[in-house]
Amino acid sequence: MRTLKNRRWLFVERPQGEVTERQFQLETVPVPELQEGQVLVRHEFLSVDPYMRGRMDDVASYAPPQALGQVMVGRTVGTVLESRREGFRSGDMVAGLGGWQEYSISDGSDLRLVDVSRVSASAWLGVIGTPGLAAWIGVQQFLRPVPGETVVVSAAAGAAGSVAGQLARLAGCRVIGIAGGPQNCQLVQQEYGFDACIDYKAEDVGKALVELAPDGIDCLFENVGGRILDAALANMAAFSRIALCGLIAGYSGQPIPMHNVYSLLVNRIQLRGFIITDHMDLWPTAFAELAGFVADGAVKCRETITKGIDNAPAAFMSMMKGNKVGKQLVQM
Amino acid sequence: MRTLKNRRWLFVERPQGEVTERQFQLETVPVPELQEGQVLVRHEFLSVDPYMRGRMDDVASYAPPQALGQVMVGRTVGTVLESRREGFRSGDMVAGLGGWQEYSISDGSDLRLVDVSRVSASAWLGVIGTPGLAAWIGVQQFLRPVPGETVVVSAAAGAAGSVAGQLARLAGCRVIGIAGGPQNCQLVQQEYGFDACIDYKAEDVGKALVELAPDGIDCLFENVGGRILDAALANMAAFSRIALCGLIAGYSGQPIPMHNVYSLLVNRIQLRGFIITDHMDLWPTAFAELAGFVADGAVKCRETITKGIDNAPAAFMSMMKGNKVGKQLVQM
Repeated sequence: MRTLKNRRWLFVERPQGEVTERQFQLETVPVPELQEGQVLVRHEFLSVDPYMRGRMDDVASYAPPQALGQVMVGRTVGTVLESRREGFRSGDMVAGLGGWQEYSISDGSDLRLVDVSRVSASAWLGVIGTPGLAAWIGVQQFLRPVPGETVVVSAAAGAAGSVAGQLARLAGCRVIGIAGGPQNCQLVQQEYGFDACIDYKAEDVGKALVELAPDGIDCLFENVGGRILDAALANMAAFSRIALCGLIAGYSGQPIPMHNVYSLLVNRIQLRGFIITDHMDLWPTAFAELAGFVADGAVKCRETITKGIDNAPAAFMSMMKGNKVGKQLVQM
Repeated sequence: MRTLKNRRWLFVERPQGEVTERQFQLETVPVPELQEGQVLVRHEFLSVDPYMRGRMDDVASYAPPQALGQVMVGRTVGTVLESRREGFRSGDMVAGLGGWQEYSISDGSDLRLVDVSRVSASAWLGVIGTPGLAAWIGVQQFLRPVPGETVVVSAAAGAAGSVAGQLARLAGCRVIGIAGGPQNCQLVQQEYGFDACIDYKAEDVGKALVELAPDGIDCLFENVGGRILDAALANMAAFSRIALCGLIAGYSGQPIPMHNVYSLLVNRIQLRGFIITDHMDLWPTAFAELAGFVADGAVKCRETITKGIDNAPAAFMSMMKGNKVGKQLVQM
């Protein structure tokens, strides 16, 4: 058993702008002996997400920066191979913060047993994972849409956006997505059931929003920022709400000024930036509701699965460019 | 009695950018006969306020635009000269929406009896008027500062800002003002009792905020926008709140982009644009509390009084340029 070799990606250089292969270095190390109180997990899936880009900069943020020379952080789902800690047994499926590697050893504090009898293991990194939590908290906690309202979701084909829109539809709202490319727009409408989807690569988003939401936008689930956010701000309804979940347009250092600031005042907008780790008290409720929706088919998900830990950096870079459908995962 | 002549300012041309004398035309007309159900008021004071600039543009906003050829809107305090409506008697002091003129006739729906036994008549247009309400609603309803928090107020020497800061101090907070010029900064600290005041005309606001609020800003009462708002955004604390009361930097059509959008997300900021007329249910409570504070000397106010209805446009233009101390009024 102790002959296990672990391949892992170290973060070795902070990026200037867009992330390249230079940021990472693959190494192979033996898996050490398990100590009392520890759990050994063999990863099945690794999640790569936009928040990781923010961690790569050496700036104060809501989380400490990714340390240089250390294994890249990341959420994982895997199987317990060996446990010297109460509460976990060999064969258990667990979600955790295993990072960009094939195996991890944990004191159990980051691990959560997951039920894969009704939903797939990978769903615990998507709809029932970080992006699903972001969608649930943004929609159910901050936007609180009521039936008949018009809800707009940017990055609607993405892992968080697709769930946010489906939750708003389940709440009885008219939901308009904004996504890039005909393939993504088709997915948003046909698979995720949004009422409409605007292709920001081909359409004038502001004009399309005026046509699709003639009475204005009541709720905005915002993942992007920059000109997408400005287009939405230009068409907000009075007393509307914005759940600010992400600003992916600026994650690689691009300036993303907001020009339609006046709309915040004139439309008496309530804007709320949020981070899921501030709301861990809501996670059990959110997980239970999301897992039920997935099992029942009420919330659908799509995944882009890249095979092999070797391809983790490529999967991350592709995800940042929007070259994927649904949730980007790496399968070991 | 029916020989009364009313001098009044009509709004005759929409401004391009800054307001000039060209927007207005003075005329003298006889005061008409009072009808059943009407009240005749002789104005003592007229309030000129930044919101009037927004009304002058022909764009959809939270209030209809100021109509061309009509008397300029504006809040007034005056004496009832004659009443043919129950609830008002000759000699009563009333606050109302009399506009830029010496007399007005009202059906009473905009009139409110005011008590001038403990506070001055003019205070009902300032601390206990529109700007005071804006301060009260922004601070007590949206910011809800708790003792020990750091509160920043922009346009701190202004009618709303000065009251907002005083309310925050009464709530036990450390209050930093931002104002223009040494005279205003001195007023903010010595008269209004702020803990500090930054002169945006002479200082680097961002740097001064870092020095004065090393742990970040918990609450921002924002009246200005543009670079002032950006400087504050760069130094917000986690979980901070912004009450967006005004954006005077952009009222004459200047672009006021927000560059530090990322702060809204990273610091999980709660931002709320608001307009006092949406919260009329709170007015009685606010008026009672503010009148008490003024009578007790707990909240201080300063006024710049311009004499004569002839000078109303000049008073408005001067106020928009910040060339006044405290609340700008026109005395008849």
